[in-house]
Amino acid sequence: MKKLSLSFYRRSSCPVATTLDLVGDKWTLLIIRDIGLFDKHRYKDFQESSEGIPTNILADRLRLLVESGLVKRVPYQDNPPRYKYHLTDPGKGLLEVVRTMAVWAGNNIKGVKIPDFSAAR
Amino acid sequence: MKKLSLSFYRRSSCPVATTLDLVGDKWTLLIIRDIGLFDKHRYKDFQESSEGIPTNILADRLRLLVESGLVKRVPYQDNPPRYKYHLTDPGKGLLEVVRTMAVWAGNNIKGVKIPDFSAAR
Repeated sequence: MKKLSLSFYRRSSCPVATTLDLVGDKWTLLIIRDIGLFDKHRYKDFQESSEGIPTNILADRLRLLVESGLVKRVPYQDNPPRYKYHLTDPGKGLLEVVRTMAVWAGNNIKGVKIPDFSAAR
Repeated sequence: MKKLSLSFYRRSSCPVATTLDLVGDKWTLLIIRDIGLFDKHRYKDFQESSEGIPTNILADRLRLLVESGLVKRVPYQDNPPRYKYHLTDPGKGLLEVVRTMAVWAGNNIKGVKIPDFSAAR
């Protein structure tokens, strides 16, 4: 599988820190979740997710995800231009991080249920 | 295992979002890493990590980690008061998220090596 070449500053050589350099915030992994587990691909689909991502943050995170090679955007309409967002292979790999977070919350926080990932495409 | 009761606002019922409510930033999981994988327990130990966490962020994140029940602090000196920080059982569970992030970076980013976790205590 083709690996990503990162052009941005890495805080350290630690692979955990590097992953957090890319997706260490409250929103980026929710976009990865939306695309990879909930089959959402359009800007307005992400806006409709129950966390209510602010539009300026959504635009910023999508730009960073495309720049870093975790997400690719594909035009589906010309006028006005509209894009669908899909995970690249490295982006799909992050679904394992997403799943691990979900399982952790289900196991460790009262009232949180572990979702049935087999139902997700 | 005793589950955490969260008193703070959750953006949604999604377990991924809930985990990110707790640890969705660039620094919190690095403190979890330091305690759980690198056997660091004191404030100054965390400051010496190669990412160079700013002291105000470190103090804030440790406070939140203790408040949320992911980390417990144990006094080891009276005058001035000093504490050692240890992972609770839910905090230890987050090491699986940390490991998954490390493996992902090793598999998907050029020049990043997967560390040997068996060497970590």
